[in-house]
Amino acid sequence: MSFEFIENGSPTTPAGFTAAGVTAGFKRSGAPDFAMVVSATPAAFAGVFTSCTFAAAPVQLCRKRVLENDFLRAVIINSGNANACTGEQGMASVVKSCEIAASALNIAPETVAAASTGRIGVQMDMSLIEKGVALAVPALSADGGNQAAEAIMTTDTVPKAAAVKFQVNGKDVTIGAMVKGAGMIDPNLKVPHATMICVITTDAVLEKAQLQKILAANAEDSFNRITVDGDMSTNDTVLILANGKSGAEIKPGSADEAVFAEALLALMQNLAKRMVLDGEGATKFVEIKVVNARSVEDARKAAEAVGNSLLCKTAWFGNDPNWGRVVAALGYSGAQFSPEKCDIYFGSIPVVKNGGDAGTPEADLLATVKEREFTITCDFHDGDAEYWVWSSDVSYEYVRINADYHT
Amino acid sequence: MSFEFIENGSPTTPAGFTAAGVTAGFKRSGAPDFAMVVSATPAAFAGVFTSCTFAAAPVQLCRKRVLENDFLRAVIINSGNANACTGEQGMASVVKSCEIAASALNIAPETVAAASTGRIGVQMDMSLIEKGVALAVPALSADGGNQAAEAIMTTDTVPKAAAVKFQVNGKDVTIGAMVKGAGMIDPNLKVPHATMICVITTDAVLEKAQLQKILAANAEDSFNRITVDGDMSTNDTVLILANGKSGAEIKPGSADEAVFAEALLALMQNLAKRMVLDGEGATKFVEIKVVNARSVEDARKAAEAVGNSLLCKTAWFGNDPNWGRVVAALGYSGAQFSPEKCDIYFGSIPVVKNGGDAGTPEADLLATVKEREFTITCDFHDGDAEYWVWSSDVSYEYVRINADYHT
Repeated sequence: MSFEFIENGSPTTPAGFTAAGVTAGFKRSGAPDFAMVVSATPAAFAGVFTSCTFAAAPVQLCRKRVLENDFLRAVIINSGNANACTGEQGMASVVKSCEIAASALNIAPETVAAASTGRIGVQMDMSLIEKGVALAVPALSADGGNQAAEAIMTTDTVPKAAAVKFQVNGKDVTIGAMVKGAGMIDPNLKVPHATMICVITTDAVLEKAQLQKILAANAEDSFNRITVDGDMSTNDTVLILANGKSGAEIKPGSADEAVFAEALLALMQNLAKRMVLDGEGATKFVEIKVVNARSVEDARKAAEAVGNSLLCKTAWFGNDPNWGRVVAALGYSGAQFSPEKCDIYFGSIPVVKNGGDAGTPEADLLATVKEREFTITCDFHDGDAEYWVWSSDVSYEYVRINADYHT
Repeated sequence: MSFEFIENGSPTTPAGFTAAGVTAGFKRSGAPDFAMVVSATPAAFAGVFTSCTFAAAPVQLCRKRVLENDFLRAVIINSGNANACTGEQGMASVVKSCEIAASALNIAPETVAAASTGRIGVQMDMSLIEKGVALAVPALSADGGNQAAEAIMTTDTVPKAAAVKFQVNGKDVTIGAMVKGAGMIDPNLKVPHATMICVITTDAVLEKAQLQKILAANAEDSFNRITVDGDMSTNDTVLILANGKSGAEIKPGSADEAVFAEALLALMQNLAKRMVLDGEGATKFVEIKVVNARSVEDARKAAEAVGNSLLCKTAWFGNDPNWGRVVAALGYSGAQFSPEKCDIYFGSIPVVKNGGDAGTPEADLLATVKEREFTITCDFHDGDAEYWVWSSDVSYEYVRINADYHT
């Protein structure tokens, strides 16, 4: 591998980035709920966002930034209020929030982006933004990435940040990131989604269009592959900022770009996997692979149907090696395949052969499904296309969290 | 209304039908698990079935009967073994089962249809079919409909049967039915689905093609409107048998036919609603209505997204008036609408006005969502199309049932 993960990596691991996480008061609990990531110099940037018709005000603002601006200097994120379904007042609030942050940082307002997560339909309390900015700006630090990762959590149980490094023409390049998201997670969409917010930083030199292309492709193979509950959020936001501080130029179409994209994908997959493992109430991590399908679309439909099946997900929670539910989900997925050619494996153990019971003793299957992580492979023997998704189980705890939590 | 429900109605309420429900031994519990419904004379029939690619052997047999036969005399149903993913041996088993029943009833084998529900991937124990038939045939009775309804239950907590009657040219016409189904229930398909088995009987005189048309249209407006968990089964079967015993002719295209279709729809909706109320672990019955949409397809997508949203369903369980989750589901549904024109009501109380908080005090919303039954109305103010679905909540009990139950 041409890159390596850095211990305790975060969005402040790349050169020229500082961050802070503070308690502004959005959460009743008093836990940190306001984060800021700042680049010392103008950073090229790109973003992918929810495809939800009810896109939150900060998502609308970010889309505007992507369309109209070439550089960002800062991203502000609050947890506790989604600023979604808040109409014109909500838009005015997020514009004002960027102005407040810009003023405190002495930068142009249009170089500030924003993301929000939390309750839908509540207007922002601007005094909390003011408080958050006032506390965060003096706290900004080159070690602040992990505090920022903590401040963006909602039902997450652990902060999730990481960084990778590699070399380009003898120069060290670093990519760091933080993510939040534990519910409203579903892959069945064209852009990242799920109440997930991800801020990625790098000190490499890249162009905006190039960043957008790499980010969108990688999101497809990371955040778009995970499902916790099949719901999508109004607020999903993935932003990448490249400030060029390393001096390492990544030319479009170059071998270096391939290395950059590969390292970024590893980072995004690392965070995506940790989102599933930290999924609300999740006790299992299940990879569903569909192989030898007629088309990627058939493989995708089949894998997503299994990954989103409530009956499969409760069976996994129950350590039940219930392949009948996998078969049922494949059957209603809309994927084109021949049932009589379909084989299914739990881990490396055959459970279905030619569409029927493979005859493996249940004890062997039990040993696999009792694992915290396992793979279900569906081989259609019908072509050479494949697709995979990552899913979790649905537990009592999922129901408790979502019956109690007031989004 | 031109028809009325009959107390304790069942598939044996119409003239010329007998039924029985007995314990053959498919269920370990010793509960009744084999049912038979028999018409005294050849009955015109029709059926609609799962669209699952892995259709169970009895479903394949029923489809063959619909294609090749004009009349049925009997339907046999077992619970405890789905005879799905059982390959050629499974097909041979269901053919043999019909022969065993036909021989005992002294009728032609091709006039017997079969349905199965229970565990997937297990070959049928033919000695249990023999035992079931041997016990059921002498037990056949004109009062047996409710026993049959009990014998087809799996995770159902109550048997579900009903009958309606009305007059055609001075002659009494009766339609009776029984249904089972409490999990694997989802509307998002073109034909009935869900592990549901429904046997409908009538003493009216109708033609096969006419029955098929009425049954398919009514299934669309009843069983296809309900969702418990968004999963679909390998075994879904709805059969209707018309033996003509009342002598009341229902001519195609006649006013009588409209009355028949209306009464049948009421019967099917009655059973569909009871399936949702008896949904696995369900504590709520929620009707989701989307009105004034641009097209029926937009209204359907929107209603089904809300009805299938795990986040909405857990919020309902928690008595949480969380309209943010409804908004999020509408937003990712793929329906075309203008968020800023969208109003939402819980019962008759406005919760969202023009895409934002309607400002109704939370206490008022709480009073609605605490009800066992309530309606969520989404008004798109964007056209005149509408659609509705019936859904339930997802509770701890749902997870318990499906983590423990070995399909």
